[in-house]
Amino acid sequence: MIERQQVHSNSPGWVVSVALPSPSLHDNSADADRLLRALKRELGVDQVQADLILLRRLPQVLRDAEYRVRCVLFRDGVCGRLVHVAAADEALAGLAIDLGTTRVVMRLVDLEDRRVLAERAFDNPQIEIGPDVLARIHYADQPGGRERLQALIVAGINREVANLCGSVHMTPDHIFLISVAGNTAMSHLLAGLPTRWMIREPYIPAVNRFGLIPAAQLGLAVNPLARLFLFPSVGSYFGGDLIAGILFTGLHRQSETALLVDVGTNAEVVLGNREWLMACAGAAGPALEGGVTRMGTTAAPGVIDRVRIDPDSKAIDIHTIDDLPPRGICGSGVIDLAAQLYLSGMIDIRGKFQPAVCGERWVEINGMAHVIIVPAEASANGQPLGISQADMDSLIRSKAAMYTILETLTGSMGIALDELKTFFVAGTFGSFIDPRSAITIGMLPDLPLTAFRSMGNTSLGGASLVLQSREAVMDIDAIRDGITYMELNVNQDFMNRFSAAKFIPHTDPGRFPSVPAPGRRISR
Amino acid sequence: MIERQQVHSNSPGWVVSVALPSPSLHDNSADADRLLRALKRELGVDQVQADLILLRRLPQVLRDAEYRVRCVLFRDGVCGRLVHVAAADEALAGLAIDLGTTRVVMRLVDLEDRRVLAERAFDNPQIEIGPDVLARIHYADQPGGRERLQALIVAGINREVANLCGSVHMTPDHIFLISVAGNTAMSHLLAGLPTRWMIREPYIPAVNRFGLIPAAQLGLAVNPLARLFLFPSVGSYFGGDLIAGILFTGLHRQSETALLVDVGTNAEVVLGNREWLMACAGAAGPALEGGVTRMGTTAAPGVIDRVRIDPDSKAIDIHTIDDLPPRGICGSGVIDLAAQLYLSGMIDIRGKFQPAVCGERWVEINGMAHVIIVPAEASANGQPLGISQADMDSLIRSKAAMYTILETLTGSMGIALDELKTFFVAGTFGSFIDPRSAITIGMLPDLPLTAFRSMGNTSLGGASLVLQSREAVMDIDAIRDGITYMELNVNQDFMNRFSAAKFIPHTDPGRFPSVPAPGRRISR
Repeated sequence: MIERQQVHSNSPGWVVSVALPSPSLHDNSADADRLLRALKRELGVDQVQADLILLRRLPQVLRDAEYRVRCVLFRDGVCGRLVHVAAADEALAGLAIDLGTTRVVMRLVDLEDRRVLAERAFDNPQIEIGPDVLARIHYADQPGGRERLQALIVAGINREVANLCGSVHMTPDHIFLISVAGNTAMSHLLAGLPTRWMIREPYIPAVNRFGLIPAAQLGLAVNPLARLFLFPSVGSYFGGDLIAGILFTGLHRQSETALLVDVGTNAEVVLGNREWLMACAGAAGPALEGGVTRMGTTAAPGVIDRVRIDPDSKAIDIHTIDDLPPRGICGSGVIDLAAQLYLSGMIDIRGKFQPAVCGERWVEINGMAHVIIVPAEASANGQPLGISQADMDSLIRSKAAMYTILETLTGSMGIALDELKTFFVAGTFGSFIDPRSAITIGMLPDLPLTAFRSMGNTSLGGASLVLQSREAVMDIDAIRDGITYMELNVNQDFMNRFSAAKFIPHTDPGRFPSVPAPGRRISR
Repeated sequence: MIERQQVHSNSPGWVVSVALPSPSLHDNSADADRLLRALKRELGVDQVQADLILLRRLPQVLRDAEYRVRCVLFRDGVCGRLVHVAAADEALAGLAIDLGTTRVVMRLVDLEDRRVLAERAFDNPQIEIGPDVLARIHYADQPGGRERLQALIVAGINREVANLCGSVHMTPDHIFLISVAGNTAMSHLLAGLPTRWMIREPYIPAVNRFGLIPAAQLGLAVNPLARLFLFPSVGSYFGGDLIAGILFTGLHRQSETALLVDVGTNAEVVLGNREWLMACAGAAGPALEGGVTRMGTTAAPGVIDRVRIDPDSKAIDIHTIDDLPPRGICGSGVIDLAAQLYLSGMIDIRGKFQPAVCGERWVEINGMAHVIIVPAEASANGQPLGISQADMDSLIRSKAAMYTILETLTGSMGIALDELKTFFVAGTFGSFIDPRSAITIGMLPDLPLTAFRSMGNTSLGGASLVLQSREAVMDIDAIRDGITYMELNVNQDFMNRFSAAKFIPHTDPGRFPSVPAPGRRISR
């Protein structure tokens, strides 16, 4: 993360100080033309566009500042954009947004020194309409639905922007650039674009390249001159959040082939280097439906995120977020749990509970086998906390789907999974996963632990980079255009690989030499 | 005029029919990207921008039309602009505006077959603030002044657009492109840009290249998607109206050097060919103040526009517009009158009335000599219609200023005035001037009459061309950037030439071989 930021820190940012020669009888070009000419040179473009409202103020601003001004610039494809000409001591901020289906994370960045000023996360208010993308797309198709969804997310952003700015003694009026990375549907719903055709064959979005949008046109309560950059998408199933992720990891600049997995609501995978990028997403047809998607639950205080089981006593040692009494288990906790259940022999290679080993932790509720992790007396709500066989089966399908996708993608390029030297793990959920546990259950390939690079919220990271580095923005189109999107062909071959991956760690344990046989003590 | 339109009629226009391949699983690029890709090819640009409001409708429009649509395009510098995607039978119109200080002329054009649909002229409503540019610039500097001037012209255009459209059974909603040619001040006041610095040294405008402005942003009541193209200016004294004029005459495409004179409120002159363009305007300092500018009064019904004087009887034969009883004399009438007075010996070579020749037409009113053209009993208002010695002196200064400007401009390029093969006369006033009379008084050089080409309203012509021809729009920046603007240096040399030109036709009659000595019958 630090490394990537260093790569781009040499690139100039979007605030440029310009000292123009004063007009004279020998150089009496117009105020706007004089300034835009200098900015064309600065950006290396043939044209710089500016809003009329800005041009109306420009002559006075230039004279007040004696022709020495700071300009907020951006780039819209082949054109430059002059967003604002600042007064002497005016604070110039940018807003990076990771527009998640469930959670929205915003980061306020100083456009001049490029420091992060503050960060804030909140639930996507569209959840009140529907928890997932599909529900919202259906709702958007009803009369007024699209407008309502757009209004909800905009109101949410506006509310939180005010709080975010307040926390650093700024006002939203200081925000001149906004950069948003979201999946294709969330990006459409923010822009008020129709999503109807994304879920109908041949599944195409209205727009893949959104360009630079006047923030005011979306109803965003920031500076009226502000422009919003919405990361482009590759298609309905490969959105701007992933392009932001690639940008942030720098995958597209590396000579060595690396892999990036974003484990969010979906599993999205990119393989590549500076020569090529190959991607696929987890929407792999009915066979995998609900597969990867059901693994993660939101991490929050009191949620179990780490599990250890003593292989001898089978005692379960849990850790909860903020060390509060346990009230649930999040995705990374489930993966830890599965790995530990397997290593302790409490589940077999098919993920089935072994009542003999589980002992009194094994109970049957409504005819469904469960393993109790936290007894009623130790939990937050006085109810026992457990995992059902159905949950475990679902996890097995999920991890098998993930592994099969990885195997298929690398295989398509003639690369073996164990050849990979770098494996970027992205996403809030992904960043909490213990790679050791993920390897143990056969979800991630058996690489040296040093190969795994937890990148945190790469979507937010990429969105922030856009505000910090001109070079980063230049990379985006190249990334988008360079991606070959592989539709997962759920054929017999794929299903065979999927079936083989439904064992822990795999039908072929030779692929996971580091994973000990169940019951043996783990050497780490 | 016909010739120029033919040059451009081979150039494609702004309405393009596109038949897109339907999306399929093999080509599932987004709706917008699919369309914009085709339009990039069509326009030969790297980028085509489109409004978000348009993109929101696009998927449905494309499907309703089965992917065969007509698009209204335009160009904004290096970028293309998709303005509208039309339904099957929708009328697509453009509006060309000659935005004069005094008079505004508008023309409605069919964007598809490029026919002129209707035309309409009205007084610039800003006249209520001030009759001339200077008065309005001063007013614009008062609090709220700029906004009021902008509102006045916009309200005027909106009112007349509704009438214009109504006359051809259209609504303003069918207008998608607007092209405006005006002088620099009028262009600024339409766009709501400050004009304050145009009249203060070093006399620079806020903007010379206005770019493509959303018409709605100016308050224009046309289609909400419409874009307005405002002709760029060279500087405060050389505006978009003249660039439109050059475009319309095609001066910039000719191999042969030609001259264009726009005799409007000011005298603006362009000399050049396809290699170079040299321009100067009549704002030639205090020596010429009120010079060229006072010649023309508005032509209207009942106004004298033609005068003949019998060299023997000195009988004055007048023609009025619409053959109504005379109530004034317009610019072309004054030039005719001066030429005839000179040829009949009623004025001398200095323009002074000769009482002995004038006879009873010579009268003194309040101590000022006058020549009566129409006696009281023959005029519209029962008052005699005459011309004073002061008016005549002013005309002499005006014509001398014009000739000196022409001489100075051609001289600066080492060209003699009589070498010119083509002399374009532009402007409503200019188009009514009888070149023979203008030569007689020494206002225009003594070229064969066939060299003079009366071009009518070239500003409106150029503005219309922009709506009709893509090629024309491509020429505009080249014209603007190619113009060398010559500041008239009113030095001793200029004043000597000016003094020599204050005789009829000139101190050196050898320059006007076709002009007979006074009193002789004219052989035409």
